Amino acid sequence: MGYDQHCPRYERAVDFLGKRWTGLILRTLMGGAPMRFGEIRCHVPALSDRLLSERLNELEREGVVVRHVHTAKPVVVEYELTAMGRALRPIVDAIQSWSDVWYEGEAAPTDAPKPNA
Amino acid sequence: MGYDQHCPRYERAVDFLGKRWTGLILRTLMGGAPMRFGEIRCHVPALSDRLLSERLNELEREGVVVRHVHTAKPVVVEYELTAMGRALRPIVDAIQSWSDVWYEGEAAPTDAPKPNA
Repeated sequence: MGYDQHCPRYERAVDFLGKRWTGLILRTLMGGAPMRFGEIRCHVPALSDRLLSERLNELEREGVVVRHVHTAKPVVVEYELTAMGRALRPIVDAIQSWSDVWYEGEAAPTDAPKPNA
Repeated sequence: MGYDQHCPRYERAVDFLGKRWTGLILRTLMGGAPMRFGEIRCHVPALSDRLLSERLNELEREGVVVRHVHTAKPVVVEYELTAMGRALRPIVDAIQSWSDVWYEGEAAPTDAPKPNA
């Protein structure tokens, strides 16, 4: 399908990926290893627990994240990308490459996170 | 920079690209030829004139779109991607490829656009 034709699949993907924090959470999980809630939380500055929980639930419903519950005590919950989620890597990498080139030298310091949304 | 490190450039890029309609407008312009307002409008169903105008202004401020005003009568205004905008092609293409694979067969009909936002 050419760029001059409307594509509902593309539209659905940008709607999903464009949601605030989603791109950051996906990048954080892209390392591949399962991560605990608190670990993800550390990598996404300024994101509240409530919103991270909401986003992870959405990503699970969408099929890109799977939640593992280890019932040994203490109970450990981990989140991991599914095959569908890992397939997002070229998108995450393309955004990283573009921003590295075009926002070079413009990066805000990481110790100045945005206020919680 | 690894996936496990927060990157403010990446964050800025996803914030910018994730804004509603931006991904669709960029894809429409990715064909390369300058387009009139009305032409872009035709390719983004359910987007109001006001919002399209707002988004195009933002894309211009961001440096990814340039506006050409041809002062012959009638005045013609066209929009075109800059080098910074054309460099977004790998992102647009990666989103298209991913959605073609993972949303296959799930596409909503193009004649059922979402209500104006």
